[in-house]
Amino acid sequence: MRGLDGPGDRYVVGVDFGTLSGRALVVRVDDGAELGTAVHEYRHGVIETALPGAVEPLPPDWALQDPDDYREVLRRAVPAAVAAAGIDPGRVIGIATDFTACTVLPSLADGTPLCEVPELRDRPHAWPKLWKHHAGQPQADRINALAHERGERWIGRYGGKISAEWQFAKGLQLLDEDPAVYRRAERFIEAADWIVQQLCGVETRNLCTAGYKGIHQDGRYPSRDFLAALDPDFTDFVGKLDGPLLPMGARAGSLTAEAAAWTGLPEGVAVAVGNVDAHVTAASAQALEPGHLVAIMGTSTCLVVNGPDLVEVPGMCGAVEGGLSPGAWGYEAGQSGVGDIFGWFVEHAAPAGLASHDRLSELAEAQPVGAHGLIALDWWNGNRSLLVNHDLSGLVVGLTLATRPQDVYRALLESTAYGTRMIVEALVEAGVPVRELVVAGGLTGNRLLMQIYADVLDRPLGVIGSTQGPALGSAIHAAVAAGAYPDVYVASRVMGRVDRDVYRPDPRRARAYDALYAEYRHLHDHFGRGGSDVMARLRAIRNAAAEGAAAPTPAPVEVLA
Amino acid sequence: MRGLDGPGDRYVVGVDFGTLSGRALVVRVDDGAELGTAVHEYRHGVIETALPGAVEPLPPDWALQDPDDYREVLRRAVPAAVAAAGIDPGRVIGIATDFTACTVLPSLADGTPLCEVPELRDRPHAWPKLWKHHAGQPQADRINALAHERGERWIGRYGGKISAEWQFAKGLQLLDEDPAVYRRAERFIEAADWIVQQLCGVETRNLCTAGYKGIHQDGRYPSRDFLAALDPDFTDFVGKLDGPLLPMGARAGSLTAEAAAWTGLPEGVAVAVGNVDAHVTAASAQALEPGHLVAIMGTSTCLVVNGPDLVEVPGMCGAVEGGLSPGAWGYEAGQSGVGDIFGWFVEHAAPAGLASHDRLSELAEAQPVGAHGLIALDWWNGNRSLLVNHDLSGLVVGLTLATRPQDVYRALLESTAYGTRMIVEALVEAGVPVRELVVAGGLTGNRLLMQIYADVLDRPLGVIGSTQGPALGSAIHAAVAAGAYPDVYVASRVMGRVDRDVYRPDPRRARAYDALYAEYRHLHDHFGRGGSDVMARLRAIRNAAAEGAAAPTPAPVEVLA
Repeated sequence: MRGLDGPGDRYVVGVDFGTLSGRALVVRVDDGAELGTAVHEYRHGVIETALPGAVEPLPPDWALQDPDDYREVLRRAVPAAVAAAGIDPGRVIGIATDFTACTVLPSLADGTPLCEVPELRDRPHAWPKLWKHHAGQPQADRINALAHERGERWIGRYGGKISAEWQFAKGLQLLDEDPAVYRRAERFIEAADWIVQQLCGVETRNLCTAGYKGIHQDGRYPSRDFLAALDPDFTDFVGKLDGPLLPMGARAGSLTAEAAAWTGLPEGVAVAVGNVDAHVTAASAQALEPGHLVAIMGTSTCLVVNGPDLVEVPGMCGAVEGGLSPGAWGYEAGQSGVGDIFGWFVEHAAPAGLASHDRLSELAEAQPVGAHGLIALDWWNGNRSLLVNHDLSGLVVGLTLATRPQDVYRALLESTAYGTRMIVEALVEAGVPVRELVVAGGLTGNRLLMQIYADVLDRPLGVIGSTQGPALGSAIHAAVAAGAYPDVYVASRVMGRVDRDVYRPDPRRARAYDALYAEYRHLHDHFGRGGSDVMARLRAIRNAAAEGAAAPTPAPVEVLA
Repeated sequence: MRGLDGPGDRYVVGVDFGTLSGRALVVRVDDGAELGTAVHEYRHGVIETALPGAVEPLPPDWALQDPDDYREVLRRAVPAAVAAAGIDPGRVIGIATDFTACTVLPSLADGTPLCEVPELRDRPHAWPKLWKHHAGQPQADRINALAHERGERWIGRYGGKISAEWQFAKGLQLLDEDPAVYRRAERFIEAADWIVQQLCGVETRNLCTAGYKGIHQDGRYPSRDFLAALDPDFTDFVGKLDGPLLPMGARAGSLTAEAAAWTGLPEGVAVAVGNVDAHVTAASAQALEPGHLVAIMGTSTCLVVNGPDLVEVPGMCGAVEGGLSPGAWGYEAGQSGVGDIFGWFVEHAAPAGLASHDRLSELAEAQPVGAHGLIALDWWNGNRSLLVNHDLSGLVVGLTLATRPQDVYRALLESTAYGTRMIVEALVEAGVPVRELVVAGGLTGNRLLMQIYADVLDRPLGVIGSTQGPALGSAIHAAVAAGAYPDVYVASRVMGRVDRDVYRPDPRRARAYDALYAEYRHLHDHFGRGGSDVMARLRAIRNAAAEGAAAPTPAPVEVLA
């Protein structure tokens, strides 16, 4: 690698908007070197209890954000990253962003968020709804039921179910619950696209969120007929979404004078279309070639892979043409609980002295495969792919008096690897080739977990070569938007980083895992595919008990003697 | 209750031989008042690693004891209990004992244990095999296979399987592995009967251990044909067992001069026939009437109930005529893990700050029934009744990121209550009436657990009125053997103690539990009755892995990058 800030070097800035903070990263165009980074924490974080300054509580399952917190990342983290890099900002040729999704807001045509319209500031529905705002589940249920009833072709692209998190569910909830705000919303826009509008003053939409979060398939959104059947007032909803739809890596526009003042970057440099944090990581992991699957592993896991053609893969989150990069079909799948499950175990199920990932891993690592005698189903947070069922729950079988905490911990790590294998096999069986596996995200640091994945999948694992996968991915898109590379494929090869074959499967362990995976699959199908609906019934009993329906009082124990 | 040691009072001594110690209890004949007790810990405890003074290790699953430790209880605990009671030992009219079972030893005709024959002292097979000596499993397997092959009628009385713990498995292991010691064994005798021989110099056998541990059914042991088919040298095995078979509460003989010197009791007082710790508790809990079921709840649970007739109840440990008391059929069932499971959870699965039964119970008690959304199968230590399968293992289903330790703890308590309900329903369905439930043993102190049992079973629970259930039960039998009462029924009514209806079911909670029990039963039958053999396969994989067959090396994780 060359030294810093050579005389002819050009730079790009990638900005990754996460759930609690935004990060800017300065990257050299020629080789992808990461030169400086800075993070700004959102002042209002996730707004879950009440609007800022208000006392009235928000209903359950709401999650909002303040759009000015996003702008503040541009004002603070970008200049700080440039300063940290020690480069001349005049050599920055482009900026690109990636965002959590579906995070979506109602706005005026000029991009003003409705929550910044003074008379609407106290209306919760005027604020951006964060991806994990789940209060639109009844609306999602209606959309799904109607889609199946009408035989809408697009529903199959989403594993048969669109999520409560997505644009149409959130938009319909807005209409249902605050029609006045719905009518005031000239636009209904992904934060991923809104931030781009803030940077370049031009409204665009990106193929990735339009496809994965907005039900844009085969060149169109759901029909007016369909929307009218949901609610006559919803008929024109697509009018709030539609706009210039650009491919990934396209130039949305040029940095405005205002945004140049915020960021300290030169006015007029390229601004790329919006993107999504997980999806943009495929570029930084050099995983855009068809068949290169990247798993972004953190509290949950998102898996994306390009395929040459459209095939129907049951249980996908989405199949979107151009969703990852132009000219290919991008497949997305998800595991709704991964690191979250391991964290739950350490916090709530590990005894004193063993309540650490390091200590549990150390003990678990010493075991031969299968020696703990356990299988877990990794459904603590439901199952996104392949079952698309959030009423499912976790299971552990094989417990004995000899079972120790490290045994259960290892079984939990393994269960998520089995879940990944289910997804990989579903892709392959449906005709999406999976030739290489690359992992990214916070869990790549767990060596035991990585080796288990290699052994369970019986495939070598590559590891992304950056700890800033999303921001680097955005920077790659900025370079393409600025014209430094002809397309994201070339830019990804030059600027992305992956260490291939970091973890190799051990043939004996892989064989042993085949036997255990067969048991996982057996349990998976029994509890997830109709053999037994006990999990759904327990969920219903739980909810009824919590609401006091089945057991109105937590009656105290009576001792009559 | 009257004052202590009135001028005309008569007393009896009950001695309870447990796994690690023996306890003597002095009881007033007229009213069952407990006046003094003393405990003597066995010097050699459980001999599991090597014979005393030897270095050669015992094989796995062996568990022996030293018979002189038993005599030492007579020499130390009995006089100490009499001293503690402050009574005149001259007023003691009888002594009775109860023992762990099947604990069995080879001896000479005069009662000398073979391990006390000098030239046999270093032969492990010459020592008493404690109940939990499990190394006779291959022999038990052979006996069971042959019994089913030949259609032996008695096998149905034992849930279709005799245990590796019982006399015939232990005897056949002795023959297989040390035929010379087998040949020297003039007798093969339950410790319950041997201790009586030590006290009165007369060899007797009691109907309880003969029936429950010795396959004595319909007036006879298994046939010579059957035994010859196992091994020609085993043909005469019953000759080592047979002897005067006496009903419970019968007088075996009179205290010898030697035993009077050990105990400080008068020579010639009545000595009752042997008995078993769990079974004798039915007398102290006033639960000898047909339909009065007593559950002795500790690390495991033993359930016994008298029925008027013989019916076949699938999954019983045994049905024995006169096994609990004369003139009735005694049914025994068992749950192989109860308190052990709760202890496992506190030790290995509860985080710091919650690792106590009290704290977990306090938090769990506040929950409405079903609010935790969990069901567990209580098979951490296999399933004795109704499934008679030690390859089964524990299961928890319904886990989510919101699951807390008290939720799992409560689910474990409930799972053992469901297991008890399975047994009670099996008895009732087969035609054994269950009219009253009484609980005894160490777990009666757990109020939450008791209330859960009352709610799950939807029946009031009585609680034994003594913390020394077995020793009091023995004392009751001593009074009968001494002629103070006409039979154990009368003696039990006068001397036993039970608090009826201590825990009453709450109708709403009982209804809520009906729904959860249906789920338990569904899982029970799926995993325990052929729906899925995953537990057995996981056990096999575990054992193979532990032996290095499937995964010869606990291969270290390799990092190749």
